[in-house]
Amino acid sequence: MSSGAPRDEFSTGLTHECGVFAAIGATEWLTGNADIAQIICIGLEALQHRGQESCGVVTSDGSNEFHIHKGMGLVKNVFNKDNIGKLRGSLGIGHTRYATRAASAAVNCQPFVVHSMHGSLATAHNGELVNCSSLRKMVLDRGVGLSTHSDSEIITQALCLIPPEGEVNGPDWPARIRHLMQLAPLSYSVVLMLKDRIYAMRDPYGNRPLCLGKILPPNYDAENEDVQPEGWLVSSESCAFLTITRYVREVLPGEIIEMTHQGVRTVDIVRRPADKQLAFCIFEYVYFARPNSIFEGQEVYSVRSHCGRQLAIEHPVEADIVGSVPESGNAAAFGYSKESKLPMGELLTKNTYVGRTFIQPTNRLRQLNVALKFSPIGTNVKGKRIILIDDSIVRGNTIGPIIKLLRRAGAKEVHIRVASPPLKYPCYMGINIPTKEELIANDLDSKSLASKVGADSLEYLSVEGLVKAVQRNIEKGADKGHCTACLTGEYPEQIPNELDW
Amino acid sequence: MSSGAPRDEFSTGLTHECGVFAAIGATEWLTGNADIAQIICIGLEALQHRGQESCGVVTSDGSNEFHIHKGMGLVKNVFNKDNIGKLRGSLGIGHTRYATRAASAAVNCQPFVVHSMHGSLATAHNGELVNCSSLRKMVLDRGVGLSTHSDSEIITQALCLIPPEGEVNGPDWPARIRHLMQLAPLSYSVVLMLKDRIYAMRDPYGNRPLCLGKILPPNYDAENEDVQPEGWLVSSESCAFLTITRYVREVLPGEIIEMTHQGVRTVDIVRRPADKQLAFCIFEYVYFARPNSIFEGQEVYSVRSHCGRQLAIEHPVEADIVGSVPESGNAAAFGYSKESKLPMGELLTKNTYVGRTFIQPTNRLRQLNVALKFSPIGTNVKGKRIILIDDSIVRGNTIGPIIKLLRRAGAKEVHIRVASPPLKYPCYMGINIPTKEELIANDLDSKSLASKVGADSLEYLSVEGLVKAVQRNIEKGADKGHCTACLTGEYPEQIPNELDW
Amino acid sequence: MSSGAPRDEFSTGLTHECGVFAAIGATEWLTGNADIAQIICIGLEALQHRGQESCGVVTSDGSNEFHIHKGMGLVKNVFNKDNIGKLRGSLGIGHTRYATRAASAAVNCQPFVVHSMHGSLATAHNGELVNCSSLRKMVLDRGVGLSTHSDSEIITQALCLIPPEGEVNGPDWPARIRHLMQLAPLSYSVVLMLKDRIYAMRDPYGNRPLCLGKILPPNYDAENEDVQPEGWLVSSESCAFLTITRYVREVLPGEIIEMTHQGVRTVDIVRRPADKQLAFCIFEYVYFARPNSIFEGQEVYSVRSHCGRQLAIEHPVEADIVGSVPESGNAAAFGYSKESKLPMGELLTKNTYVGRTFIQPTNRLRQLNVALKFSPIGTNVKGKRIILIDDSIVRGNTIGPIIKLLRRAGAKEVHIRVASPPLKYPCYMGINIPTKEELIANDLDSKSLASKVGADSLEYLSVEGLVKAVQRNIEKGADKGHCTACLTGEYPEQIPNELDW
Amino acid sequence: MSSGAPRDEFSTGLTHECGVFAAIGATEWLTGNADIAQIICIGLEALQHRGQESCGVVTSDGSNEFHIHKGMGLVKNVFNKDNIGKLRGSLGIGHTRYATRAASAAVNCQPFVVHSMHGSLATAHNGELVNCSSLRKMVLDRGVGLSTHSDSEIITQALCLIPPEGEVNGPDWPARIRHLMQLAPLSYSVVLMLKDRIYAMRDPYGNRPLCLGKILPPNYDAENEDVQPEGWLVSSESCAFLTITRYVREVLPGEIIEMTHQGVRTVDIVRRPADKQLAFCIFEYVYFARPNSIFEGQEVYSVRSHCGRQLAIEHPVEADIVGSVPESGNAAAFGYSKESKLPMGELLTKNTYVGRTFIQPTNRLRQLNVALKFSPIGTNVKGKRIILIDDSIVRGNTIGPIIKLLRRAGAKEVHIRVASPPLKYPCYMGINIPTKEELIANDLDSKSLASKVGADSLEYLSVEGLVKAVQRNIEKGADKGHCTACLTGEYPEQIPNELDW
Repeated sequence: MSSGAPRDEFSTGLTHECGVFAAIGATEWLTGNADIAQIICIGLEALQHRGQESCGVVTSDGSNEFHIHKGMGLVKNVFNKDNIGKLRGSLGIGHTRYATRAASAAVNCQPFVVHSMHGSLATAHNGELVNCSSLRKMVLDRGVGLSTHSDSEIITQALCLIPPEGEVNGPDWPARIRHLMQLAPLSYSVVLMLKDRIYAMRDPYGNRPLCLGKILPPNYDAENEDVQPEGWLVSSESCAFLTITRYVREVLPGEIIEMTHQGVRTVDIVRRPADKQLAFCIFEYVYFARPNSIFEGQEVYSVRSHCGRQLAIEHPVEADIVGSVPESGNAAAFGYSKESKLPMGELLTKNTYVGRTFIQPTNRLRQLNVALKFSPIGTNVKGKRIILIDDSIVRGNTIGPIIKLLRRAGAKEVHIRVASPPLKYPCYMGINIPTKEELIANDLDSKSLASKVGADSLEYLSVEGLVKAVQRNIEKGADKGHCTACLTGEYPEQIPNELDW
Repeated sequence: MSSGAPRDEFSTGLTHECGVFAAIGATEWLTGNADIAQIICIGLEALQHRGQESCGVVTSDGSNEFHIHKGMGLVKNVFNKDNIGKLRGSLGIGHTRYATRAASAAVNCQPFVVHSMHGSLATAHNGELVNCSSLRKMVLDRGVGLSTHSDSEIITQALCLIPPEGEVNGPDWPARIRHLMQLAPLSYSVVLMLKDRIYAMRDPYGNRPLCLGKILPPNYDAENEDVQPEGWLVSSESCAFLTITRYVREVLPGEIIEMTHQGVRTVDIVRRPADKQLAFCIFEYVYFARPNSIFEGQEVYSVRSHCGRQLAIEHPVEADIVGSVPESGNAAAFGYSKESKLPMGELLTKNTYVGRTFIQPTNRLRQLNVALKFSPIGTNVKGKRIILIDDSIVRGNTIGPIIKLLRRAGAKEVHIRVASPPLKYPCYMGINIPTKEELIANDLDSKSLASKVGADSLEYLSVEGLVKAVQRNIEKGADKGHCTACLTGEYPEQIPNELDW
Repeated sequence: MSSGAPRDEFSTGLTHECGVFAAIGATEWLTGNADIAQIICIGLEALQHRGQESCGVVTSDGSNEFHIHKGMGLVKNVFNKDNIGKLRGSLGIGHTRYATRAASAAVNCQPFVVHSMHGSLATAHNGELVNCSSLRKMVLDRGVGLSTHSDSEIITQALCLIPPEGEVNGPDWPARIRHLMQLAPLSYSVVLMLKDRIYAMRDPYGNRPLCLGKILPPNYDAENEDVQPEGWLVSSESCAFLTITRYVREVLPGEIIEMTHQGVRTVDIVRRPADKQLAFCIFEYVYFARPNSIFEGQEVYSVRSHCGRQLAIEHPVEADIVGSVPESGNAAAFGYSKESKLPMGELLTKNTYVGRTFIQPTNRLRQLNVALKFSPIGTNVKGKRIILIDDSIVRGNTIGPIIKLLRRAGAKEVHIRVASPPLKYPCYMGINIPTKEELIANDLDSKSLASKVGADSLEYLSVEGLVKAVQRNIEKGADKGHCTACLTGEYPEQIPNELDW
Repeated sequence: MSSGAPRDEFSTGLTHECGVFAAIGATEWLTGNADIAQIICIGLEALQHRGQESCGVVTSDGSNEFHIHKGMGLVKNVFNKDNIGKLRGSLGIGHTRYATRAASAAVNCQPFVVHSMHGSLATAHNGELVNCSSLRKMVLDRGVGLSTHSDSEIITQALCLIPPEGEVNGPDWPARIRHLMQLAPLSYSVVLMLKDRIYAMRDPYGNRPLCLGKILPPNYDAENEDVQPEGWLVSSESCAFLTITRYVREVLPGEIIEMTHQGVRTVDIVRRPADKQLAFCIFEYVYFARPNSIFEGQEVYSVRSHCGRQLAIEHPVEADIVGSVPESGNAAAFGYSKESKLPMGELLTKNTYVGRTFIQPTNRLRQLNVALKFSPIGTNVKGKRIILIDDSIVRGNTIGPIIKLLRRAGAKEVHIRVASPPLKYPCYMGINIPTKEELIANDLDSKSLASKVGADSLEYLSVEGLVKAVQRNIEKGADKGHCTACLTGEYPEQIPNELDW
């Protein structure tokens, strides 16, 4: 996997569903010229690793006629000067998507926009509703026709449809949101735009990430950033904040935030059941997030590096050089090298141009696969005992051919160290994990796998080691807790039967 | 610059012109199904870093009606299963191009194909004819109308037009090639296809790289690769040879090679003037080539790593961590770290998705440029004294904003170390170097530059240091010599006046 | 306007909204291979003149997962062998659209498909709901979020939402349809698909056309077409029925038809208010329909030809030749020539390739407009007294330049005869008519217009003459009645205030 | 065939090769803003019926660096505001092409542009060199490499290469042109641009059409067009002259015209052999040209109409109505109706939208072909005895299904009258005629064909009748003569053996 590179056919197999982004301008500067739309697109490009299938932006200029542009593909291919020029207004939300539940098609592109009796609303969603089926039935039973299988559409229609019990059917959106969050506690981060405001909410378990940022004025004093912001942002990850924007803090589990031209405020915090722990997805640390994103007060790179250190402690081996499957595992290799005192160096170089669109399906050249993508660096490989760090192993298809490449380039020994525990269980909260049968860890233990892929040794990080690396820097006493369901089979809440694997 | 990544708007400014590739099948396996065309496309993808503007493949099935497909863009965008399926035959040549002399347009895509009185020929060319003007005049004076400004077209027409002096106007292609090489000694690597054979030639100064490879049979014995090859290859760089193909040797300076279905032979070696030295482009080592390519018996990564070591010897500095502008300078950082005993780590992560197609030209967001592409890794930057290795500095536009990013992320000190000497002079042999005025090294010395870009220190590798790192592993007594014209102003041959900068 | 040619920038200004088509296969032949989808696309191409902006097809293979393909553009550009191959099943509906109410965008493409509590349904709609606003409010008040401004979406959601009063909320679709038709009596023709059946309904006023057809078996006896059909069709116009399909009859005003694999039956006929007349759009005869379509038992060409005869009776003039603006007015010219005994001939030839995509907006070449599209035929124009028949005049922009062209080509006299009355009022039932101010007939009477456009004379057909030509062949005693609101301002029902022009 | 409609799969089978156009501005108005390029594109759109495969425009702003844009497809698809904006200058030439000799590919798009020893030149060519092979050999023997199989490239290279015998190798372009015309007397119309002038020449037999036009100033007096033109034009057909441009005269057979900013002059007239007749292609009248084009002082429509009259004289038949295959045969039907006194009316309407891109190749719907394109007009067909005029019959594939459609619509009798003689021989002068075996007239006489296609009768116009209709209006004593080779097998010059059919 990767600390920053595009997920492609060579990535090991997990796919994530979505990134969300929202922006509202507090000053005049941000009201014309599609500035807000451009800021959102810049944010979406920084979140592109969370979904490359489709993307979309919706803006409002204060009326109920929102401006919308969505399409299949990368942000840079979907948006251009022409279409972004039409996304006028001073607030907007954006989405980048990898299909989970709903099939891949233009109709499923988010944000969803609907006209409701209380004005237009647009929603963008990261996550997956664990009790999607029962919510869907409820919406259908009320006589709504649904256009898609997306749970994001259900969220949107449910917000329109369902007034908080015991309350009048009025435009009290915070009450509607609170009510929905009580009906559906897991899992999502959502941004929701009305004509003049944006709501952002994170599920009570904190399963999906969400954070708050601000836009700095053009000529702020670099020494003193405590100026009045020009606007406010919400993003799935803090890596989307750049020189002109700043990370402020995480949106709390269960928190509902309201952003207007006047500022930002916490509307409410919806609680999870008292006996339940927080359940922030531990694979955000391991694999999904960009290395420079910040969760729970710590940089992802630092956590990955500590996973590498922990891995070196758990599974040391004599060797000449430590490297990674690029750029995947770079941070863990850094930690492993530091802990083991072994030098770190590039073992493989990646050909970024490879497309192979032209290879005939019947051709024996098909098998070249991995060899087209990675080339060994002889200088660091030939005659060396190598430790190769990978961030995770899912199907186990890639590691074998890579080892073969290294051996052919003269590696004396190849030791694989995996900076996460074996992946064994499905995720029902937004991660697209292969079937049980496809997960190699359900089939082979580390020794058998080593032998199958031709490694001199192959070892995983332990679950305890991972949790230790993740929680090491979180302050004592903080409300912490991580979802490790895909590793342990222990889910934050009971999973409805119909979702059985 | 880069040890493997795409050249884009963020690269520091040099552009290279071309990659050439040729393949001929010796066995029946390689005669149908567009296998040769697929092998050539795989080769071109591996050479894509040498030119992303256009590419093309021409094959022959033994008749004078060659099969041609060319287009603007990357190999993966130009070629697909449909069009490659029409490139039938058992021999072919390919080209990937970055415009130097001729403007960027479809008409300039190579290979060039013409029908001559002695059958069809196709040519692909890497390099630039120093005496292009006089050759062009000669061709025009013979009454030929030229379609382009490309010197590659001149090579093609000159080969058709000019029988060796004192010889009859017959189909003796080796004689024509030899004659042309005497008229134009600098600089090129050329592959030339006739209906049943391929010629490959490298200029007598060896300025541009060219090497020979072979295709292994499907079930060869991995322990003993000395089997009868299934076919033969020529490539600008050895990085284009993969698991099913193998590097054999470099094509020698001045060598003319003939490849047929029967095998490969040296037709002739055209000598350079007795008083002149070899002049292999030293920037192939510094910047252009992929790190796993082999020149003069040594891997490029190893040379770059030694540049880093040499740089550490010439310009040591106390610091906490060594890193590089990714992926540029990775190898040099490895060497610098090794020599200096300072730990190596990622300082910046790169967002591979950035396109910014949507940013309005008038917008202040335009300035984000570098910040959109690179993000600092706080873990390795905050509170640290940093050594940042770059492979070269051309215009100096990128380094300043990067330093600013690092400072904003909390770097205590930033020391820039450049793994090549200051770039000061134009190249007339195929490298597109900015004008004298744009080259920052003609304007500012290293101290002034350090101060301008906000570095605590900035130092270049010396020319002697570079040459030492490059020649260190070449065997004693070998015919060696490198063109350092862009660094020293000393050209292999006198440059005609009209090319004055 | 046109008796068969594409509506483009040169057409005089009316736009129509939609064509609908539906097909169900009664035999096995029509269940695989996307045969139904192909038949629908053939039908939509024949209805393309009713809308060129977008088109779509939805099919069912018996499950609730419908197969959908929609897109912007012509049928021939939206559908190809690949995407149509996925539209499997033995029943389906299609739509071709010109935007009326809703802005032109992909999201508005029909058919609409939703999942309801009683299974999936797809709808396609031609027409415009006169009381759209109140229906929309009703749907929103029930808590539904609407994705578009399209009244077709309102029809779809209303069908899901609103059980017939006093009845249970069950899957009784005919009852739901009947109920909706009572709520919204004007104007529409709708096809509605469930997983195993299709409903087709026409508004009680019969404002929009709709007819029934059948698919003949491959080897039917041409002499005796009374064979068991292979399937059943519904179409906006009978011109969509071809050699393998046959016209059966019109769908009656207010009729609800059910089509299943077992056959076709009338479910019900919803009555209009007792004091109201039928109101079939008279402009279908004048302008919209293809000349070979059949309404009320008569071919459109024949009606248009009689309009021409009537015009000759009302406004005779001495002349040498009668012609038309091609292909517009061909039929009327035929009638005028017949009645007046003057010879008919081509006066203008049309350049079908004209695009002018390249003409700079500031250029005086912009003015060439009409001259690029039409060229006079000197043989029939030079020295002649000409009668030029146009089907209608809307803005009056085109006729002036055409007269100038004819004069320049040597016409001695140019008499314009318009085969319909002056267009003066808006349509609220699906026709996109320019604003009152743009309608030239609200500004100038025929004499002033003649003088403005440089005609020797210009005369319109009278409203009485038009009605006479239209009703001439309809059998006595039949329930007949035509909407002439755009000519007379007399609407079939009172138009809600908010629709005021 | 067609008097103005696009040639598509339904046209009867002849294809023409090219249209050429040239323009030079005499006033300042035409030097900036790509005005000349726009005028050329307008001209090419009007010539689009002569070739829809590719098109191109080349302009000069006075330097040897011409501005070029070419592409596959229609003018309206190849040119847009962006690319035309770059075609600056005050003179230029354009070309629209249907492949004859050379395969269909971008490389063959015209105009051809080359740099020669005497400056750049661009050429565009309509026609086909009868002695192409020997010219090609001559060019190759001089050592030129040719990029294409196009005889247009040979013309270009020959002009560069071959100084007039006995003359010096100087820049005397008229002498070079004259020399080439003596070497290659048949068949072509060529426009040739140098940086500051345009030459136009027509072959000595006058086989291909070419005419001269002028650009009128914006505010010329319509009554008195004898003003100083703003510029000069050359076009394959006069239909390309519009309101702001005027037809002046035909370029004479063998004439070389020079156009500069100072004006137009005849440089020379190259004579054909004294014993040979003029040979203007008679099929330009029958089929290729637009009906409003003028050849030899007469409008094409008028000639076609006389063909119809002649046909009525030669082959009268009792009937109720005369019509044509639209829009083909309109003019001949007009003449036939006039001569026979039978009324003329539309029998078939054409669906201009038909694409059938979606019909699966295996499907029985494939057979619908003609029925998708044409629909009978029942009003004029049912119960009627019909005379259907077609301009020509080539393969005879279309006429049968059309007759079947008419019969099914109730036609009592169907009499086919073909307004040209049977097509029996190949053309070597630029028209792409199917092989002998495919020409139905070589297989069946008119009686047998009538029986095969199901007509009550089928008759062709005689060769004498055609020639009579064509020459009827040409003034006595004029140098006239028409190539009827495809009808009679009598060629203007002996055809070289290698071109044998």
